[in-house]
Amino acid sequence: MNLRIPGPTPCPPEVLAAVAREMVDHRGPEFAAALRRVSQGLKDAFHTSNDVLIFTASGTGGLEVAIVNTLSPGDPVLAVSIGNFGDRFASIARTYGADVTKLSFAPGQAADPAAIDEALGKNPAIKAVLVTHNETSTGVTNPLREIAEVVRRHDKLLLVDAVSSMSSIPCEVDAWGLDVVVSGSQKGWMVPPGLAFVSFSPRAWQANETAKMPRFYLDARRARESLEKGQTPWTPAVSIVFGLEVALDMLEREGWENVYARHARCGDVARQGVQQLGLKLLADPRYASNTVTAVWAPEGINVSELRKLLREEYGTVLGGGQGELTGKIFRIGHLGLVSEADVQAAVDALAQALARLGYERVPVTR
Amino acid sequence: MNLRIPGPTPCPPEVLAAVAREMVDHRGPEFAAALRRVSQGLKDAFHTSNDVLIFTASGTGGLEVAIVNTLSPGDPVLAVSIGNFGDRFASIARTYGADVTKLSFAPGQAADPAAIDEALGKNPAIKAVLVTHNETSTGVTNPLREIAEVVRRHDKLLLVDAVSSMSSIPCEVDAWGLDVVVSGSQKGWMVPPGLAFVSFSPRAWQANETAKMPRFYLDARRARESLEKGQTPWTPAVSIVFGLEVALDMLEREGWENVYARHARCGDVARQGVQQLGLKLLADPRYASNTVTAVWAPEGINVSELRKLLREEYGTVLGGGQGELTGKIFRIGHLGLVSEADVQAAVDALAQALARLGYERVPVTR
Repeated sequence: MNLRIPGPTPCPPEVLAAVAREMVDHRGPEFAAALRRVSQGLKDAFHTSNDVLIFTASGTGGLEVAIVNTLSPGDPVLAVSIGNFGDRFASIARTYGADVTKLSFAPGQAADPAAIDEALGKNPAIKAVLVTHNETSTGVTNPLREIAEVVRRHDKLLLVDAVSSMSSIPCEVDAWGLDVVVSGSQKGWMVPPGLAFVSFSPRAWQANETAKMPRFYLDARRARESLEKGQTPWTPAVSIVFGLEVALDMLEREGWENVYARHARCGDVARQGVQQLGLKLLADPRYASNTVTAVWAPEGINVSELRKLLREEYGTVLGGGQGELTGKIFRIGHLGLVSEADVQAAVDALAQALARLGYERVPVTR
Repeated sequence: MNLRIPGPTPCPPEVLAAVAREMVDHRGPEFAAALRRVSQGLKDAFHTSNDVLIFTASGTGGLEVAIVNTLSPGDPVLAVSIGNFGDRFASIARTYGADVTKLSFAPGQAADPAAIDEALGKNPAIKAVLVTHNETSTGVTNPLREIAEVVRRHDKLLLVDAVSSMSSIPCEVDAWGLDVVVSGSQKGWMVPPGLAFVSFSPRAWQANETAKMPRFYLDARRARESLEKGQTPWTPAVSIVFGLEVALDMLEREGWENVYARHARCGDVARQGVQQLGLKLLADPRYASNTVTAVWAPEGINVSELRKLLREEYGTVLGGGQGELTGKIFRIGHLGLVSEADVQAAVDALAQALARLGYERVPVTR
């Protein structure tokens, strides 16, 4: 099966073998060694000397970690959204009582740093900015470095959803000054879902001192204290940590710059491939993501039918649209364990399935 | 390695093979089938027609699910505690703003239903009772059926930590009238950690209608709505669900009554074994747990040293004490994938290790 969704991604056999290791005492020396090893590997991958904490949760759980550990009810927050996951980040903040000002951009567009600058200028009380690095629902990568420069200039806390970018697309936590940064194991890390990774800058820990949103399971301070002992506060998803240990070995052997370059090439193959079929990309080409490509469904093609045909007869699994884009787009994931050949195979399968459904490179409507 | 801690427990090779399955689309038909199958299996194991929801979290995350989805800040709650995990349940409630009245019993003792009756009589405003079925830190199983009778009579909501009992010790959700009941995958279920299972009675759903504690990642209503579509709201720990599918097959083939009987026999072997070595049990023998046995360390024996020797030279991993019992007790886990021979082997290793450390059946001090 060519699993080409933006997570869970395929896992190398070496990783799956590690995931199948027999259980150990999660408070014993063997697990402590594994946790310390992945913790250091995550710091390297995040390009940070900050703590990178590990939670047994999905990426959404990681976003909640970012919010509840740094903010208090009533805190004014600017939530920058370019899609479904930006909206979700804002919803979590609102759920816990933050005073959320939303700055949204149309699907396919990236966030404009100048607009963020303006919004922060107009709202000096804003305490934190929430932003998505790579919007999985639209296949757009925000200019995070430029956004971070603006946020730093206004001296606000910057919370970043890097769930589907970190490890695949350059994301420099320390160099760019990102305060809290979230990723998830089932994305570019080549391991199954079950773990969220969250880095906290010294500034974020300072915010934590006065942050009053309630938290227990997702408490970052407890996670930091336990990590010093080579543990997690609560029983972790041991199997996924074992898988991550092996996956990090593989990614580090390849070298992070090479990993990023491979993702860039895979992104190119996806974008060129679908455009050669006469299909239109959702993303502004200047900000098209190297981990996921969102494609407008051509007129007359039912997305569910297309995905079913691809899955059942071409062994190719693509993602559908989310939220208001459901039925209008499909998405090709190209992150983690992925080569140009994998992406080309998906494009070839897509070409055949579309032809079967009567598509003949008719002009797309949008 | 004879892993004899109260979770994570050893997993059968068939389960580990399933855990190592290649990833699938968590929004696709294959995963939906797996989720529906385990969902039904969990309902059978919980002896309930209630929804049993699946969260990617530890047992502690499951306890948080129970609280934040049924209560509001300021709600008066009676937290019955017989140890570390009872204390934790109370802490979660307090963290989210419940008005917690604590009813604690000494380590090794079970909760007294008459005392709960009295506490509820004195505090008619109490909305919910928190209770641990099996206290993993002391090896005591509470008389949950009797406690539930009292709570039902007072017409309160009953939230139960059955993390280390459900699937190993009889726990009848519907027959006993338990409203929210929590378990965790790494206990008697024979699968790795990563999933929490939480059942909600109609009464619990009714409480949910007005419950105002904030929740997003651990939101039960979202989990219920997604389950109807064969999904989870956020990306789940797919590998652990695959493992659970196989483990439930195995447990169901054995038959739940036989599984309970096996745990009872294993508990007997543990208790008789350590007593024959002249060691003293922490638990009141009337309430000694069939999933974990806590043993007072004999005078002059350093628990850390004993556990290290057992691990390094006898391939046997025992648990230590938690909280105020650290250094005073050790614990033998006998749940999940466990036979009488496994427990006997642990007892034999213990006998040899103790002898190496100079223990000669001297009278214990406590």
